[in-house]
Amino acid sequence: MFAERGFHGASVEDICERAGFTRGAFYSNFGSKDELVLALFQATTDRLLEQIEALLPELASQPGTLLDAVLGLLDETAPDQRQWHLISAEFTLHALRDPEAAEALNKQRAMFRESLTRLVEQITETSGLELTVPAEQFVRMVIAVHEGARSQSLLEPDDVPAGTLEHTFLPMVLEAVSRPSR
Amino acid sequence: MFAERGFHGASVEDICERAGFTRGAFYSNFGSKDELVLALFQATTDRLLEQIEALLPELASQPGTLLDAVLGLLDETAPDQRQWHLISAEFTLHALRDPEAAEALNKQRAMFRESLTRLVEQITETSGLELTVPAEQFVRMVIAVHEGARSQSLLEPDDVPAGTLEHTFLPMVLEAVSRPSR
Repeated sequence: MFAERGFHGASVEDICERAGFTRGAFYSNFGSKDELVLALFQATTDRLLEQIEALLPELASQPGTLLDAVLGLLDETAPDQRQWHLISAEFTLHALRDPEAAEALNKQRAMFRESLTRLVEQITETSGLELTVPAEQFVRMVIAVHEGARSQSLLEPDDVPAGTLEHTFLPMVLEAVSRPSR
Repeated sequence: MFAERGFHGASVEDICERAGFTRGAFYSNFGSKDELVLALFQATTDRLLEQIEALLPELASQPGTLLDAVLGLLDETAPDQRQWHLISAEFTLHALRDPEAAEALNKQRAMFRESLTRLVEQITETSGLELTVPAEQFVRMVIAVHEGARSQSLLEPDDVPAGTLEHTFLPMVLEAVSRPSR
Protein backbone atom coordinates (compact mmCIF):
# COMPACT_ATOMS: atom_id res chain seq x y z
CA MET A 1 0.00 0.00 0.00
CA PHE A 2 2.80 2.44 0.86
CA ALA A 3 4.58 1.71 -2.43
CA GLU A 4 1.34 1.99 -4.39
CA ARG A 5 -0.19 5.07 -2.83
CA GLY A 6 2.69 6.76 -1.05
CA PHE A 7 3.26 7.13 2.67
CA HIS A 8 0.72 9.93 3.03
CA GLY A 9 -1.67 8.46 0.44
CA ALA A 10 -2.00 5.05 2.13
CA SER A 11 -4.46 5.26 5.03
CA VAL A 12 -4.56 2.96 8.04
CA GLU A 13 -7.92 1.75 6.64
CA ASP A 14 -6.29 0.85 3.28
CA ILE A 15 -3.53 -1.02 5.05
CA CYS A 16 -5.91 -2.94 7.30
CA GLU A 17 -8.17 -3.87 4.40
CA ARG A 18 -5.23 -5.19 2.37
CA ALA A 19 -3.84 -7.12 5.31
CA GLY A 20 -7.23 -8.46 6.42
CA PHE A 21 -6.94 -6.98 9.89
CA THR A 22 -9.15 -4.64 11.87
CA ARG A 23 -8.16 -1.13 12.86
CA GLY A 24 -8.15 -2.41 16.42
CA ALA A 25 -5.56 -5.03 15.51
CA PHE A 26 -3.45 -2.34 13.82
CA TYR A 27 -3.49 0.01 16.76
CA SER A 28 -2.84 -2.74 19.28
CA ASN A 29 0.45 -3.37 17.42
CA PHE A 30 1.49 0.04 16.06
CA GLY A 31 0.97 3.52 17.41
CA SER A 32 0.98 5.06 13.93
CA LYS A 33 1.86 4.49 10.27
CA ASP A 34 5.36 5.72 11.16
CA GLU A 35 5.79 2.80 13.55
CA LEU A 36 4.68 0.34 10.89
CA VAL A 37 7.21 1.66 8.37
CA LEU A 38 9.95 1.58 10.98
CA ALA A 39 9.01 -2.03 11.80
CA LEU A 40 9.33 -2.83 8.07
CA PHE A 41 12.79 -1.21 8.03
CA GLN A 42 13.81 -3.20 11.08
CA ALA A 43 12.65 -6.50 9.56
CA THR A 44 14.38 -5.76 6.24
CA THR A 45 17.69 -4.67 7.71
CA ASP A 46 17.67 -7.58 10.21
CA ARG A 47 17.22 -10.02 7.34
CA LEU A 48 20.03 -8.41 5.34
CA LEU A 49 22.40 -8.45 8.32
CA GLU A 50 21.60 -12.12 8.97
CA GLN A 51 22.34 -12.98 5.35
CA ILE A 52 25.65 -11.13 5.47
CA GLU A 53 26.62 -12.85 8.72
CA ALA A 54 25.86 -16.23 7.15
CA LEU A 55 28.44 -15.47 4.45
CA LEU A 56 31.20 -14.60 6.87
CA PRO A 57 32.78 -17.96 7.71
CA GLU A 58 33.24 -18.83 4.06
CA LEU A 59 34.47 -15.48 2.85
CA ALA A 60 36.13 -13.73 5.75
CA SER A 61 39.58 -14.21 4.29
CA GLN A 62 38.72 -12.65 0.93
CA PRO A 63 37.39 -9.16 1.52
CA GLY A 64 37.05 -8.42 -2.21
CA THR A 65 34.91 -11.51 -2.67
CA LEU A 66 32.92 -10.64 0.41
CA LEU A 67 32.11 -7.20 -0.94
CA ASP A 68 30.92 -8.82 -4.16
CA ALA A 69 28.84 -11.28 -2.17
CA VAL A 70 27.26 -8.52 -0.11
CA LEU A 71 26.48 -6.54 -3.24
CA GLY A 72 25.04 -9.74 -4.70
CA LEU A 73 22.68 -9.98 -1.74
CA LEU A 74 21.44 -6.48 -2.43
CA ASP A 75 20.92 -7.42 -6.10
CA GLU A 76 19.07 -10.60 -5.21
CA THR A 77 16.46 -8.63 -3.38
CA ALA A 78 16.10 -6.61 -6.61
CA PRO A 79 12.52 -7.70 -7.36
CA ASP A 80 11.57 -5.89 -4.14
CA GLN A 81 13.96 -2.98 -4.67
CA ARG A 82 11.40 -0.79 -6.40
CA GLN A 83 8.82 -1.16 -3.64
CA TRP A 84 11.47 -0.86 -1.00
CA HIS A 85 12.97 2.26 -2.55
CA LEU A 86 9.54 3.92 -2.82
CA ILE A 87 8.77 3.25 0.84
CA SER A 88 12.22 4.12 2.08
CA ALA A 89 12.70 7.31 0.02
CA GLU A 90 9.25 8.52 0.88
CA PHE A 91 9.66 7.96 4.60
CA THR A 92 12.99 9.79 4.43
CA LEU A 93 11.21 12.78 2.86
CA HIS A 94 8.59 12.58 5.59
CA ALA A 95 11.37 12.55 8.21
CA LEU A 96 12.97 15.65 6.64
CA ARG A 97 9.75 17.52 7.43
CA ASP A 98 8.89 15.87 10.76
CA PRO A 99 11.52 16.00 13.55
CA GLU A 100 9.92 13.15 15.49
CA ALA A 101 10.01 10.83 12.47
CA ALA A 102 13.59 11.98 11.80
CA GLU A 103 14.63 11.03 15.33
CA ALA A 104 13.07 7.56 15.03
CA LEU A 105 14.49 6.97 11.54
CA ASN A 106 17.97 8.17 12.53
CA LYS A 107 17.95 5.90 15.56
CA GLN A 108 17.11 2.93 13.40
CA ARG A 109 19.59 3.81 10.65
CA ALA A 110 22.26 4.24 13.33
CA MET A 111 21.59 0.73 14.68
CA PHE A 112 21.83 -0.74 11.18
CA ARG A 113 25.01 1.20 10.49
CA GLU A 114 26.57 0.05 13.77
CA SER A 115 25.85 -3.59 12.94
CA LEU A 116 27.32 -3.19 9.46
CA THR A 117 30.32 -1.34 10.91
CA ARG A 118 31.01 -4.20 13.34
CA LEU A 119 30.82 -6.66 10.43
CA VAL A 120 33.26 -4.58 8.38
CA GLU A 121 35.68 -4.35 11.31
CA GLN A 122 35.41 -8.09 11.89
CA ILE A 123 36.05 -8.86 8.21
CA THR A 124 39.00 -6.53 7.79
CA GLU A 125 40.58 -7.84 10.99
CA THR A 126 40.14 -11.51 10.00
CA SER A 127 41.61 -10.81 6.60
CA GLY A 128 44.67 -8.98 7.90
CA LEU A 129 43.60 -5.57 6.62
CA GLU A 130 43.15 -2.23 8.27
CA LEU A 131 41.08 0.65 7.04
CA THR A 132 42.62 4.09 6.62
CA VAL A 133 39.25 5.75 7.30
CA PRO A 134 36.88 5.00 10.20
CA ALA A 135 34.86 1.88 9.32
CA GLU A 136 31.65 3.82 9.92
CA GLN A 137 32.64 6.34 7.22
CA PHE A 138 33.17 3.49 4.78
CA VAL A 139 29.77 2.06 5.69
CA ARG A 140 28.16 5.48 5.20
CA MET A 141 29.77 5.70 1.77
CA VAL A 142 28.51 2.22 0.80
CA ILE A 143 24.99 3.21 1.88
CA ALA A 144 25.19 6.53 -0.02
CA VAL A 145 26.36 4.81 -3.22
CA HIS A 146 23.74 2.11 -2.89
CA GLU A 147 20.86 4.53 -2.29
CA GLY A 148 21.99 6.96 -4.99
CA ALA A 149 22.62 4.18 -7.51
CA ARG A 150 19.29 2.50 -6.79
CA SER A 151 17.48 5.66 -7.74
CA GLN A 152 19.28 5.70 -11.12
CA SER A 153 18.68 1.98 -11.69
CA LEU A 154 14.97 2.32 -11.04
CA LEU A 155 14.65 5.35 -13.32
CA GLU A 156 16.77 3.82 -16.11
CA PRO A 157 16.77 0.04 -15.66
CA ASP A 158 18.23 -0.58 -19.15
CA ASP A 159 21.10 1.88 -18.82
CA VAL A 160 21.96 1.14 -15.19
CA PRO A 161 21.13 -2.47 -14.31
CA ALA A 162 20.80 -2.85 -10.52
CA GLY A 163 24.18 -3.06 -8.85
CA THR A 164 26.26 -1.77 -11.79
CA LEU A 165 27.69 1.31 -10.10
CA GLU A 166 28.26 -0.50 -6.81
CA HIS A 167 30.05 -3.43 -8.49
CA THR A 168 32.19 -1.12 -10.59
CA PHE A 169 33.27 1.39 -7.99
CA LEU A 170 32.97 0.02 -4.44
CA PRO A 171 35.79 -2.52 -4.77
CA MET A 172 38.02 0.39 -5.86
CA VAL A 173 36.97 2.41 -2.86
CA LEU A 174 37.66 -0.52 -0.52
CA GLU A 175 41.06 -1.01 -2.16
CA ALA A 176 41.83 2.70 -1.73
CA VAL A 177 40.95 2.79 1.98
CA SER A 178 42.52 -0.49 3.10
CA ARG A 179 46.07 -1.73 3.60
CA PRO A 180 47.69 -4.78 5.16
CA SER A 181 47.66 -4.37 8.94
CA ARG A 182 50.93 -4.52 10.76
CA MET B 1 5.72 25.60 -2.17
CA PHE B 2 6.95 22.23 -3.47
CA ALA B 3 9.48 21.94 -0.67
CA GLU B 4 6.92 23.02 1.94
CA ARG B 5 3.93 20.98 0.87
CA GLY B 6 5.34 18.29 -1.37
CA PHE B 7 4.93 17.89 -5.12
CA HIS B 8 1.41 16.51 -4.79
CA GLY B 9 0.48 18.76 -1.86
CA ALA B 10 1.33 22.05 -3.59
CA SER B 11 -1.49 23.07 -5.91
CA VAL B 12 -1.18 25.34 -8.94
CA GLU B 13 -3.30 27.80 -6.94
CA ASP B 14 -0.81 27.73 -4.03
CA ILE B 15 2.08 28.31 -6.42
CA CYS B 16 0.35 31.19 -8.22
CA GLU B 17 -0.61 32.84 -4.96
CA ARG B 18 2.95 32.66 -3.63
CA ALA B 19 4.41 33.93 -6.90
CA GLY B 20 1.83 36.68 -7.33
CA PHE B 21 0.69 35.39 -10.72
CA THR B 22 -2.66 34.36 -12.09
CA ARG B 23 -3.54 30.80 -13.09
CA GLY B 24 -3.69 32.12 -16.64
CA ALA B 25 -0.10 33.31 -16.43
CA PHE B 26 0.93 29.90 -15.06
CA TYR B 27 -0.73 27.93 -17.83
CA SER B 28 0.54 30.22 -20.55
CA ASN B 29 4.06 29.27 -19.45
CA PHE B 30 3.75 25.71 -18.16
CA GLY B 31 1.50 22.87 -19.23
CA SER B 32 1.55 21.31 -15.74
CA LYS B 33 3.31 21.25 -12.38
CA ASP B 34 5.65 18.65 -13.91
CA GLU B 35 6.82 21.20 -16.45
CA LEU B 36 7.47 23.77 -13.75
CA VAL B 37 9.61 21.35 -11.73
CA LEU B 38 11.51 20.35 -14.86
CA ALA B 39 12.12 24.03 -15.63
CA LEU B 40 13.49 24.44 -12.08
CA PHE B 41 15.81 21.47 -12.69
CA GLN B 42 16.96 22.95 -15.97
CA ALA B 43 17.71 26.34 -14.40
CA THR B 44 19.57 24.77 -11.48
CA THR B 45 21.70 22.41 -13.55
CA ASP B 46 22.43 25.15 -16.11
CA ARG B 47 23.69 27.39 -13.32
CA LEU B 48 25.85 24.63 -11.87
CA LEU B 49 27.35 23.77 -15.27
CA GLU B 50 28.12 27.44 -15.91
CA GLN B 51 29.86 27.72 -12.56
CA ILE B 52 31.94 24.62 -13.27
CA GLU B 53 32.88 25.88 -16.72
CA ALA B 54 34.01 29.16 -15.21
CA LEU B 55 36.48 27.23 -13.04
CA LEU B 56 38.02 25.35 -15.93
CA PRO B 57 40.71 27.71 -17.26
CA GLU B 58 42.21 28.13 -13.82
CA LEU B 59 42.06 24.54 -12.72
CA ALA B 60 42.16 22.36 -15.80
CA SER B 61 45.69 21.22 -15.09
CA GLN B 62 44.92 20.03 -11.56
CA PRO B 63 42.11 17.51 -11.71
CA GLY B 64 42.25 16.81 -7.96
CA THR B 65 41.86 20.50 -7.23
CA LEU B 66 39.11 20.75 -9.81
CA LEU B 67 37.17 17.97 -8.17
CA ASP B 68 37.50 19.78 -4.84
CA ALA B 69 36.34 22.99 -6.47
CA VAL B 70 33.33 21.30 -8.04
CA LEU B 71 32.42 19.72 -4.72
CA GLY B 72 32.88 23.15 -3.16
CA LEU B 73 30.30 24.54 -5.58
CA LEU B 74 27.83 21.89 -4.48
CA ASP B 75 28.53 22.80 -0.84
CA GLU B 76 28.14 26.52 -1.50
CA THR B 77 24.62 25.96 -2.65
CA ALA B 78 24.10 24.15 0.68
CA PRO B 79 21.59 26.66 2.10
CA ASP B 80 19.29 25.59 -0.75
CA GLN B 81 20.22 21.93 -0.58
CA ARG B 82 17.38 20.98 1.72
CA GLN B 83 14.70 22.58 -0.46
CA TRP B 84 16.35 21.29 -3.57
CA HIS B 85 16.61 17.76 -2.22
CA LEU B 86 12.96 17.74 -1.17
CA ILE B 87 11.81 18.85 -4.63
CA SER B 88 14.20 16.63 -6.50
CA ALA B 89 13.66 13.46 -4.44
CA GLU B 90 9.92 13.93 -4.52
CA PHE B 91 9.77 14.43 -8.26
CA THR B 92 11.92 11.32 -8.70
CA LEU B 93 9.37 9.35 -6.66
CA HIS B 94 6.60 10.80 -8.80
CA ALA B 95 8.52 9.73 -11.92
CA LEU B 96 8.88 6.18 -10.59
CA ARG B 97 5.09 5.96 -10.61
CA ASP B 98 4.37 7.96 -13.76
CA PRO B 99 6.03 6.83 -17.03
CA GLU B 100 5.50 10.20 -18.72
CA ALA B 101 7.20 12.08 -15.89
CA ALA B 102 9.97 9.45 -15.93
CA GLU B 103 10.60 10.02 -19.62
CA ALA B 104 10.81 13.80 -19.19
CA LEU B 105 13.02 13.54 -16.10
CA ASN B 106 15.34 10.99 -17.71
CA LYS B 107 15.71 13.19 -20.78
CA GLN B 108 16.71 16.12 -18.63
CA ARG B 109 19.05 14.10 -16.42
CA ALA B 110 20.65 12.69 -19.57
CA MET B 111 21.33 16.20 -20.90
CA PHE B 112 22.89 17.24 -17.60
CA ARG B 113 24.98 14.07 -17.48
CA GLU B 114 26.18 14.58 -21.05
CA SER B 115 27.31 18.12 -20.27
CA LEU B 116 29.13 16.93 -17.15
CA THR B 117 30.66 14.04 -19.09
CA ARG B 118 32.02 16.44 -21.73
CA LEU B 119 33.52 18.58 -18.97
CA VAL B 120 35.15 15.55 -17.36
CA GLU B 121 36.59 14.44 -20.71
CA GLN B 122 37.87 17.93 -21.37
CA ILE B 123 39.50 18.17 -17.96
CA THR B 124 41.14 14.75 -18.04
CA GLU B 125 42.48 15.40 -21.55
CA THR B 126 43.89 18.83 -20.67
CA SER B 127 45.56 17.40 -17.61
CA GLY B 128 47.15 14.47 -19.42
CA LEU B 129 45.01 11.83 -17.80
CA GLU B 130 42.81 9.12 -19.16
CA LEU B 131 39.98 7.35 -17.41
CA THR B 132 39.91 3.58 -17.16
CA VAL B 133 36.11 3.60 -17.07
CA PRO B 134 33.77 5.46 -19.44
CA ALA B 135 33.54 9.09 -18.32
CA GLU B 136 29.76 8.79 -18.15
CA GLN B 137 30.07 5.96 -15.60
CA PHE B 138 32.28 8.16 -13.45
CA VAL B 139 29.73 10.98 -13.72
CA ARG B 140 26.93 8.59 -12.74
CA MET B 141 28.97 7.53 -9.70
CA VAL B 142 29.57 11.17 -8.67
CA ILE B 143 25.84 11.86 -8.96
CA ALA B 144 24.94 8.70 -7.00
CA VAL B 145 27.36 9.57 -4.18
CA HIS B 146 26.18 13.16 -4.10
CA GLU B 147 22.49 12.27 -3.97
CA GLY B 148 22.97 9.47 -1.46
CA ALA B 149 25.24 11.57 0.75
CA ARG B 150 22.92 14.58 0.64
CA SER B 151 20.15 12.47 2.10
CA GLN B 152 22.40 11.48 5.04
CA SER B 153 23.60 15.08 5.53
CA LEU B 154 20.07 16.42 5.67
CA LEU B 155 18.93 13.73 8.11
CA GLU B 156 22.03 14.04 10.32
CA PRO B 157 23.58 17.46 9.71
CA ASP B 158 25.83 17.20 12.79
CA ASP B 159 27.21 13.76 12.01
CA VAL B 160 27.56 14.21 8.24
CA PRO B 161 28.24 17.87 7.38
CA ALA B 162 27.34 18.54 3.74
CA GLY B 163 30.05 17.32 1.40
CA THR B 164 31.90 15.11 3.90
CA LEU B 165 31.46 11.80 2.11
CA GLU B 166 32.09 13.33 -1.32
CA HIS B 167 35.26 15.11 -0.18
CA THR B 168 36.56 11.99 1.56
CA PHE B 169 35.88 9.39 -1.09
CA LEU B 170 35.49 10.92 -4.55
CA PRO B 171 39.15 11.97 -4.93
CA MET B 172 40.05 8.32 -4.18
CA VAL B 173 37.63 7.11 -6.81
CA LEU B 174 39.05 9.55 -9.38
CA GLU B 175 42.57 8.41 -8.49
CA ALA B 176 41.54 4.77 -8.90
CA VAL B 177 39.97 5.25 -12.34
CA SER B 178 42.55 7.56 -13.92
CA ARG B 179 46.10 7.15 -15.16
CA PRO B 180 48.55 9.25 -17.17
CA SER B 181 47.58 9.10 -20.83
CA ARG B 182 50.18 7.85 -23.29
